[in-house]
Amino acid sequence: MTAKKMLMIVCDGLSDRPVRELDNKTPLQFAKKPAMDALSRHGVNGTMDVVGPGVIPGSDTAHLALFGYDPYAVYTGRGPLEAAGAGVALDRGDVAFRCNFATVDKNGMITDRRAGRIKSGTDELARAITGMEIDGVEIIFKEGSEHRGVLVLKGKGLDHRVSDIDPHREGRVLESRPLSPKAEKTAKVVNQFVKNSSAILAASRVNMQRVKDGLPPANIILPRGAGSTRALEPLTDRYGITCAAVAGVTLVKGICRIVGMDVPDVAGATGGLDTDYKAKADAALRLLQNHDFVFVNVKAGDIAGHDGDFRMKVRVVESIDMMLGIMLKDMKEDVVVALTCDHSTPVVVKEHSADPVPIAISGGGARVDGVREFDEISCASGALGRMRGMDLMPTMLGMADRARKFGA
Amino acid sequence: MTAKKMLMIVCDGLSDRPVRELDNKTPLQFAKKPAMDALSRHGVNGTMDVVGPGVIPGSDTAHLALFGYDPYAVYTGRGPLEAAGAGVALDRGDVAFRCNFATVDKNGMITDRRAGRIKSGTDELARAITGMEIDGVEIIFKEGSEHRGVLVLKGKGLDHRVSDIDPHREGRVLESRPLSPKAEKTAKVVNQFVKNSSAILAASRVNMQRVKDGLPPANIILPRGAGSTRALEPLTDRYGITCAAVAGVTLVKGICRIVGMDVPDVAGATGGLDTDYKAKADAALRLLQNHDFVFVNVKAGDIAGHDGDFRMKVRVVESIDMMLGIMLKDMKEDVVVALTCDHSTPVVVKEHSADPVPIAISGGGARVDGVREFDEISCASGALGRMRGMDLMPTMLGMADRARKFGA
Repeated sequence: MTAKKMLMIVCDGLSDRPVRELDNKTPLQFAKKPAMDALSRHGVNGTMDVVGPGVIPGSDTAHLALFGYDPYAVYTGRGPLEAAGAGVALDRGDVAFRCNFATVDKNGMITDRRAGRIKSGTDELARAITGMEIDGVEIIFKEGSEHRGVLVLKGKGLDHRVSDIDPHREGRVLESRPLSPKAEKTAKVVNQFVKNSSAILAASRVNMQRVKDGLPPANIILPRGAGSTRALEPLTDRYGITCAAVAGVTLVKGICRIVGMDVPDVAGATGGLDTDYKAKADAALRLLQNHDFVFVNVKAGDIAGHDGDFRMKVRVVESIDMMLGIMLKDMKEDVVVALTCDHSTPVVVKEHSADPVPIAISGGGARVDGVREFDEISCASGALGRMRGMDLMPTMLGMADRARKFGA
Repeated sequence: MTAKKMLMIVCDGLSDRPVRELDNKTPLQFAKKPAMDALSRHGVNGTMDVVGPGVIPGSDTAHLALFGYDPYAVYTGRGPLEAAGAGVALDRGDVAFRCNFATVDKNGMITDRRAGRIKSGTDELARAITGMEIDGVEIIFKEGSEHRGVLVLKGKGLDHRVSDIDPHREGRVLESRPLSPKAEKTAKVVNQFVKNSSAILAASRVNMQRVKDGLPPANIILPRGAGSTRALEPLTDRYGITCAAVAGVTLVKGICRIVGMDVPDVAGATGGLDTDYKAKADAALRLLQNHDFVFVNVKAGDIAGHDGDFRMKVRVVESIDMMLGIMLKDMKEDVVVALTCDHSTPVVVKEHSADPVPIAISGGGARVDGVREFDEISCASGALGRMRGMDLMPTMLGMADRARKFGA
């Protein structure tokens, strides 16, 4: 049997609950979506607890699960995912933190955790503090959007089990403490980095100008969410497949890079409501030509959910359906296509929720179960039953005739 | 509540995918199978991942799971299963290997891994090399069909974590290496056995005759697939039930013996396409009279799948249905009957696949869920949902009112 290619399309947060204004239907039930329904009709369907029943997935833990990793075993913190998303190459054993540029007064009290949501100059500040060496550990700092940044420690004997310097509210800056005897060096290095960088930041041209302009200076870095990628074996090694991703959101791009995917920048794929759906479809089809597995994330449904905007969410469903229609129409070969969500973001909740998500898989060895519509209820009567996010990747590999035999 | 008896019927490899020539139905959907459908109609139905979602089961790992064992915990290699199948009684801690009789030249290079698929004389050769003692370890060697045999080491301080002597292709004979410090003695013993037995085989009457006849001599034993049964608690101890099996295939018989089943030889039960279905039905009914649990394996569906012969597979469905009809008709009491497969062997794949298998259970405390046909899609809408192979045995025990209470 020839191995098939695989396409996983994740509609971020699109899964929902019944909405009164939509005749008590979910946006997926309410919208017109001929391509999604065709996928359901030609394949197997089910519902999926992406992380586990009653667990609200983060975007990070959800995607780890969808790629076949047990998030409880491999997720150590958001730091490495943000760092990879920001384009900092991580090696096994590196420890990464998410950071804020913040403002402290002369008594070491944080007066603004986001340095007035600083809009510009963080690139210059980052360049001033990156590259130093402490105890033989190389320090890399890279700015993100607004007040955000990432800190990566590279060197021997590091361990991510350290407490945050960021107190997560205004008040006294914390000392990072080792949460394991193995993490003593890491805590020491990160504390020293905050001290060294504070001196540099205070004396910087950018901050002197901010003080002159009456703006809070970005005079301290507050690291949090330490994590390491030690346990993540890339998909390429794990399953022997070449992988690529089409995604706009930094965090999702970071996860894709960490698991070994090619993540080209797609013009127009913004990760916002204005994303270019046609460009994403074309990019996915192009990547399918020279990769075994292509992953597509569309963020817009999650944004509409967070905004509580049910009308927008219906429109997002119809836009994604248009994108899917292009993909299915122009597909040159038999590909195992999975359509699902990373979590529900119900418009009545305006946050991620623990509600299971619909899943449809067609092509390759997928059976045909008679489900006729792609939504939270119709899919639940399908032959996939209720599955876990972690099982999606093995299930797709099985239908693509790429699974391994256990035993004889 | 009186405990019920239990009958598990496993249709090896019968589960399939849609076949174009069968109107895009699976062989189970296409065939006439009134007895199977009656079982579905009078019971609960579901689909089952025998080992796990997206895992292609071997026959060995699949049967371990169906008998309630976690194959990831107990499966160490095929050696012990083959040995038990060949009728060698295994004790806890014994290490067993599958072996080939092979041909080496005077430089120790394997010139034929199967000694010309030697047809006769291996019984005499086996008798010449079995029974020796090396380092206080008793050596048992038993011939199998054609060039096959099994080697069992019995003694203290053995460990199955040793590498194969068989290089799995023509070329130089390997030395067995310990893969754990605890396995040093085992590697030493198996290497010494190969050396000692080679000398005996070379001088044997059988091989002198083969050389005279221009046939490759069976002058070396190549052990592989070392395993131990250390972790397998027999079903009889585990659940307090008496068990018996009707099976034709050596490997399956071996597994049944290891888990503590009586495995009588049934005349006509060949493990092939020509098996006597009526004889199997009669044997199962007879064994049910004095056992709590009877297991039946019918191999033919797997063979038709490996051959890619969809017409044969439809005929096999109808033959098994006839067998099931006899069983259900002549059953004297209320028995919990489960009908399922150990894995799919789709005719389009010609190999085992990871696709889930249908399962139907009726009798005893089984509910009735309204499913009307036994096939991969119909069963998926049943009340059992999607389950794992490891859960079948406890599920049957529950419906037979033999499960244990956990808590007060």
